[in-house]
Amino acid sequence: MSDNERRRAGRHFLQIPGPSPVPERILRAMDMPVIDHRGPQFQKLGQRVLAKIKGVFKTDSHVFVYPTSGTGAWEAALANLFSPGDSVLMYETGHFATLWKSMAQNLRLRPEFIGSDWRGGVDVERIESRLREDAGHSIKAVCVVHNETSTGATSRIDEVRKAINAAGHPALLLVDTISGLACTDYRHDEWGVDVSVSGSQKGLMLPPGLGFNAVSEKALAFARKAETAKQFWSWEGMIPHNARGFFPSTPATNLLYGLDVAIDMLYEEGLDHVFARHQRHGEATRRAVAAWGLDTICLDPRLYSPVLTGVMLPEGHDADRFRAIALDHFDISLGAGLGRLAGKAFRIGHLGDINDLTLLGALAGVEMSLSLASIDCRASGVLAAMEYLRETAAAEAA
Amino acid sequence: MSDNERRRAGRHFLQIPGPSPVPERILRAMDMPVIDHRGPQFQKLGQRVLAKIKGVFKTDSHVFVYPTSGTGAWEAALANLFSPGDSVLMYETGHFATLWKSMAQNLRLRPEFIGSDWRGGVDVERIESRLREDAGHSIKAVCVVHNETSTGATSRIDEVRKAINAAGHPALLLVDTISGLACTDYRHDEWGVDVSVSGSQKGLMLPPGLGFNAVSEKALAFARKAETAKQFWSWEGMIPHNARGFFPSTPATNLLYGLDVAIDMLYEEGLDHVFARHQRHGEATRRAVAAWGLDTICLDPRLYSPVLTGVMLPEGHDADRFRAIALDHFDISLGAGLGRLAGKAFRIGHLGDINDLTLLGALAGVEMSLSLASIDCRASGVLAAMEYLRETAAAEAA
Amino acid sequence: MSDNERRRAGRHFLQIPGPSPVPERILRAMDMPVIDHRGPQFQKLGQRVLAKIKGVFKTDSHVFVYPTSGTGAWEAALANLFSPGDSVLMYETGHFATLWKSMAQNLRLRPEFIGSDWRGGVDVERIESRLREDAGHSIKAVCVVHNETSTGATSRIDEVRKAINAAGHPALLLVDTISGLACTDYRHDEWGVDVSVSGSQKGLMLPPGLGFNAVSEKALAFARKAETAKQFWSWEGMIPHNARGFFPSTPATNLLYGLDVAIDMLYEEGLDHVFARHQRHGEATRRAVAAWGLDTICLDPRLYSPVLTGVMLPEGHDADRFRAIALDHFDISLGAGLGRLAGKAFRIGHLGDINDLTLLGALAGVEMSLSLASIDCRASGVLAAMEYLRETAAAEAA
Amino acid sequence: MSDNERRRAGRHFLQIPGPSPVPERILRAMDMPVIDHRGPQFQKLGQRVLAKIKGVFKTDSHVFVYPTSGTGAWEAALANLFSPGDSVLMYETGHFATLWKSMAQNLRLRPEFIGSDWRGGVDVERIESRLREDAGHSIKAVCVVHNETSTGATSRIDEVRKAINAAGHPALLLVDTISGLACTDYRHDEWGVDVSVSGSQKGLMLPPGLGFNAVSEKALAFARKAETAKQFWSWEGMIPHNARGFFPSTPATNLLYGLDVAIDMLYEEGLDHVFARHQRHGEATRRAVAAWGLDTICLDPRLYSPVLTGVMLPEGHDADRFRAIALDHFDISLGAGLGRLAGKAFRIGHLGDINDLTLLGALAGVEMSLSLASIDCRASGVLAAMEYLRETAAAEAA
Repeated sequence: MSDNERRRAGRHFLQIPGPSPVPERILRAMDMPVIDHRGPQFQKLGQRVLAKIKGVFKTDSHVFVYPTSGTGAWEAALANLFSPGDSVLMYETGHFATLWKSMAQNLRLRPEFIGSDWRGGVDVERIESRLREDAGHSIKAVCVVHNETSTGATSRIDEVRKAINAAGHPALLLVDTISGLACTDYRHDEWGVDVSVSGSQKGLMLPPGLGFNAVSEKALAFARKAETAKQFWSWEGMIPHNARGFFPSTPATNLLYGLDVAIDMLYEEGLDHVFARHQRHGEATRRAVAAWGLDTICLDPRLYSPVLTGVMLPEGHDADRFRAIALDHFDISLGAGLGRLAGKAFRIGHLGDINDLTLLGALAGVEMSLSLASIDCRASGVLAAMEYLRETAAAEAA
Repeated sequence: MSDNERRRAGRHFLQIPGPSPVPERILRAMDMPVIDHRGPQFQKLGQRVLAKIKGVFKTDSHVFVYPTSGTGAWEAALANLFSPGDSVLMYETGHFATLWKSMAQNLRLRPEFIGSDWRGGVDVERIESRLREDAGHSIKAVCVVHNETSTGATSRIDEVRKAINAAGHPALLLVDTISGLACTDYRHDEWGVDVSVSGSQKGLMLPPGLGFNAVSEKALAFARKAETAKQFWSWEGMIPHNARGFFPSTPATNLLYGLDVAIDMLYEEGLDHVFARHQRHGEATRRAVAAWGLDTICLDPRLYSPVLTGVMLPEGHDADRFRAIALDHFDISLGAGLGRLAGKAFRIGHLGDINDLTLLGALAGVEMSLSLASIDCRASGVLAAMEYLRETAAAEAA
Repeated sequence: MSDNERRRAGRHFLQIPGPSPVPERILRAMDMPVIDHRGPQFQKLGQRVLAKIKGVFKTDSHVFVYPTSGTGAWEAALANLFSPGDSVLMYETGHFATLWKSMAQNLRLRPEFIGSDWRGGVDVERIESRLREDAGHSIKAVCVVHNETSTGATSRIDEVRKAINAAGHPALLLVDTISGLACTDYRHDEWGVDVSVSGSQKGLMLPPGLGFNAVSEKALAFARKAETAKQFWSWEGMIPHNARGFFPSTPATNLLYGLDVAIDMLYEEGLDHVFARHQRHGEATRRAVAAWGLDTICLDPRLYSPVLTGVMLPEGHDADRFRAIALDHFDISLGAGLGRLAGKAFRIGHLGDINDLTLLGALAGVEMSLSLASIDCRASGVLAAMEYLRETAAAEAA
Repeated sequence: MSDNERRRAGRHFLQIPGPSPVPERILRAMDMPVIDHRGPQFQKLGQRVLAKIKGVFKTDSHVFVYPTSGTGAWEAALANLFSPGDSVLMYETGHFATLWKSMAQNLRLRPEFIGSDWRGGVDVERIESRLREDAGHSIKAVCVVHNETSTGATSRIDEVRKAINAAGHPALLLVDTISGLACTDYRHDEWGVDVSVSGSQKGLMLPPGLGFNAVSEKALAFARKAETAKQFWSWEGMIPHNARGFFPSTPATNLLYGLDVAIDMLYEEGLDHVFARHQRHGEATRRAVAAWGLDTICLDPRLYSPVLTGVMLPEGHDADRFRAIALDHFDISLGAGLGRLAGKAFRIGHLGDINDLTLLGALAGVEMSLSLASIDCRASGVLAAMEYLRETAAAEAA
């Protein structure tokens, strides 16, 4: 055993703040015998969860729940709605937007991609102007990522809808809010979203394994004409079963136990309070980054993400080497730079079951690792974050 | 609260033997913090699990692991291999075979369905003769269900392959072993299977949420020509990531913790011992059924399932009413008759983490419920099962 | 590995019905981080639990909770109340009564022991007549076991108190209700008990590790004069801390998490319903014993225990060999004959988180093991129990 | 709900570093069904644990394990060894030493207490000189606290033994190592300790509920003459049962599951590595305290505790108000000043399942709370600790 391994031997490999930390209460709720997914006890669970999840999306429409990942939920949305050859307008907010675009290609759609340098979110004017050009309405949908997990930019979905409407275009609005939902305000109905795609492992504080599609009536109607081959993803096949609290095929029962509790926890705290908590931790993190003299990936202050903060390393430094140092020395698993940011950036999460002190521990881990990696810092980011958290904690407690 | 609800209040709603009971050791292994699925700790887990799972399928080929259900794993197999319009020969062993056939239709394939009365397994001669007719080799694959969960018949996959070969036909062999794998012997390589489809919630003793495709080199090559639109299911997209222990999209991390332990448990006991255990519990159950004077759904003794036993009720009795009586009075969740057997049959599982006494408890629940439902029994099935279990326990301990 | 070991390999070693099975909900509640036992969060827990536990004893008096076993709770009662040389009248209901008497001797008290053949419970007339003889009131207390776990006899504590009163004797009444509490009705206040001793691992459905003393005002006053050296057990030392929800030394925090939930579960079901459930399972067990042609240890039908049933084996059979057969072949852990019943009797528990089918599984295990041990049975006890459970289940559900 | 409560709602109430954090692996190991404590499966556990625990105490002598707290283990040691009226020499290292002395008084012993100002550990010269005065050897034992949890001073037990020997005195040596064991080196045999008292909830990383007595042959022989009334605590009563892996009364089975794993974890990491880890975290903490300009309670650098650091607040500041601020604002549960230090000091733990970043989070919580409580700090303790941890992490990884 190396000394690093010895240090961790037999202990929980403490990771601040890699994947969204799952609260103990949720893990314990999932640690229960599997019940018959066709029996009356499951039915009550199914009905309860399918009803409660709507409030998280702020929708009265149907929310489909799949035993899948976020990627599966992307595919569900595209496969249900479109036919091969359909055009969709997508926006390159970052790595995940790019992956979704690739998926659209692989599903034989014709995605049109509005390019960007990944340093901001969606520029709604570019969407509006493109749609105005599409007089023949060949574009079937606009697809955007709400919170781009690869960069830390949270686009304004309400403004995307306004842009579509301003262009007088009938396009559907599809939104990936995999990492945005339940971390920051999201309003499926009010914002006129047609399909919201999400997953279990971020704001819902669950392990990965559930994917979601919240779907407007308009999208359901649109989907009935789609010709992409699918069965597992089929919304139509799901609806009659869901109506009675069931699923057409075997659901991920134990994750549904966890979802049941996770939604309760969000409501017990209050969604607005949850959002404010993430916002405050995001601001603390950005103050640390600024103190270090580093740049966040996202350059648009209106769109700073409350979920995670992407950080650029100065030229000449290898972000993956830096991340390995952090992991080796301090058991902290920082997010990698993805796609075109690979090796150039890293990401700090501030979502899930963390509090002020776990966040500060994480920032301390970053700061010490920057030093070990010989990346000069202007000042202590930990102190900057502490100052902000202390002041706002005092105000909050007042 | 009704008296039934009071009886259960606050207690684990004990279900013998509905879904495959998950061993405590597996549930606890899954009850752990989510690790970063792109970090080195996950990599070791991924490499280990992807290697070990091969032994369960008895294959050296690639086994793909999806965060999905068995239905998803069906779709993965079909979507990877075929193009719209492709013909496949499927066999109507029961409800699940019928669902798989419907899926093939929905995926725009042209399934040809060899009909049956659901009272047996695959008649390999019918497959051979049909393939002999297909001189032009328009049939791309033969798709059969190994252990038909809706009836309790375990077809002879080795003989299916022999029939294909005897017909001199190049068809691929696809096998659904969702409920067969790890309960009864299964040999992907030796039997010449091209794609084996399975799931986590049966013989692997896990909660639902993982789907598997074991895929021969021949099938991988065949798949490269397929034109069905897919991305999430793509084998090709998975291979390079799997090679390093990773997955292209977010895996169901905590289920993989459980899979890691589940496979260890199978090997600790020894696969042959696992198979013998299920066989013995199946025989005990069938002796009970015979004593009651009831018929098993499966009429072919060669194909009796060691995983579950489907039981026909006499004419004039509603099996769902009977099942409700069992659940209401004895907290036992019996499998429903499915499809054309709805209301006419019920199913007793004997898989997962059960032992002689939990099985006997289950049989006692059935016997008492038969009485409460005024279904006359010839003799006590419990006593018949006890006699067999007692004798064989003595022999085993000797 | 032997075949027996292989059969169990890696699986939960299923034990029906050895120690009181702990509900999953309670185990999960205990599976939580330890909180500071001097902080405000613990205080709320402490206050809640100390208040709620009174209802289980049906008392308004103080209930002391120790991090200890039932044996420790015995010692707490004796050490608080008495001085070396004090006389106490104890009753030989069985092995545990005998152990308590030995403890009294070791604590330098002078226990007077009313002997019995262990085949019944307390004969209150013998207590009354002995107290009438004690004109000088040298006997300080009467100590009886409520539910004698070594035999399965539940004595009438109300009648013991009446006997004491009828004798016009001022003796305190001490009751060991370690296995009776929360399984069968117990009324500390109404029955005039001065100290009720109990533990966590029986009717309270917890793992072992908590001991209880419910103490009347009269006993608290009496204890102030006691001269036995003690500190850890001291009621006086506990009272001021308990008043604020705390404990003078480190409590078994995680067991208190479990106790909090366990009491909730008892109230959710309703104590009377809990008692009736155990009564019904006791009757089913006794019908099985009668069908086998065996005798229960307890020969007094008024005092049959709803918690467990002790069973005599016919002369010439070694009960421990029989129990080993049951354990080896069927993974069922039956209680041993204790003390003078060692090798002659075994015990079947019917308490904790069991239901009709787990009980029947247990009885089936006994029946098969009787056969393997060549102990002739008159008829099937399992069928007798099934008949009773079926009939009463039907009535209950009606 | 107050804003503080909202912040925590439904979430694990994160406490750094109040009670010793229990690793997930240990909590899960305890979250298992209770097995029969008189059966062969328990026997293996009992034998294994009773053997392995000796290595933690570094002794070949018997280690007794009780279902009790540390206070109970104190009482076990005194009750087994002494008779009323026996003289023992105790040393006032702090609050816990004082409590132990009170217990000795309550058990009718005659403790002689060597007083101190609680700002250091044991001055062995005072012990030696007092023993030299005791020419008649009326002092039966010297009782000292190894790691005084109320102050953070770790006395030199080896030197205490040398002092006793130097005085040519036959006194037994009793050591409370409740919080020292498994955090810092402890050598029962080599140091000539006669009874080592410990508990589960500190270095053994378990919840509270187990108490330990490691007992030399000399002490066992001495105990046979003792006349203090006891039964539950009796070493003699325990020995024959322990010899076969059992206990005379019901053990805390699930805590023994945890102990089994905890000892494995200590050995997997290596005891010396465990000790070095605590030492490093202690030094980091003391550097923070020094940077803040505060004093540690312990003024003797030779005896600084690697387990916890007690910190004096400047005159005029209420330490309990400060601790309440920390808890309210940052969910950090700091140890209170106890006894004569109440309101004047607080304590930072650095034991159990923590790593560099959780410690830094804790120190950040202290630093922010000092500011909120208007306690001026000279400099940032967090930065001082980070500097030390960073340097030593680099060295360790090298």
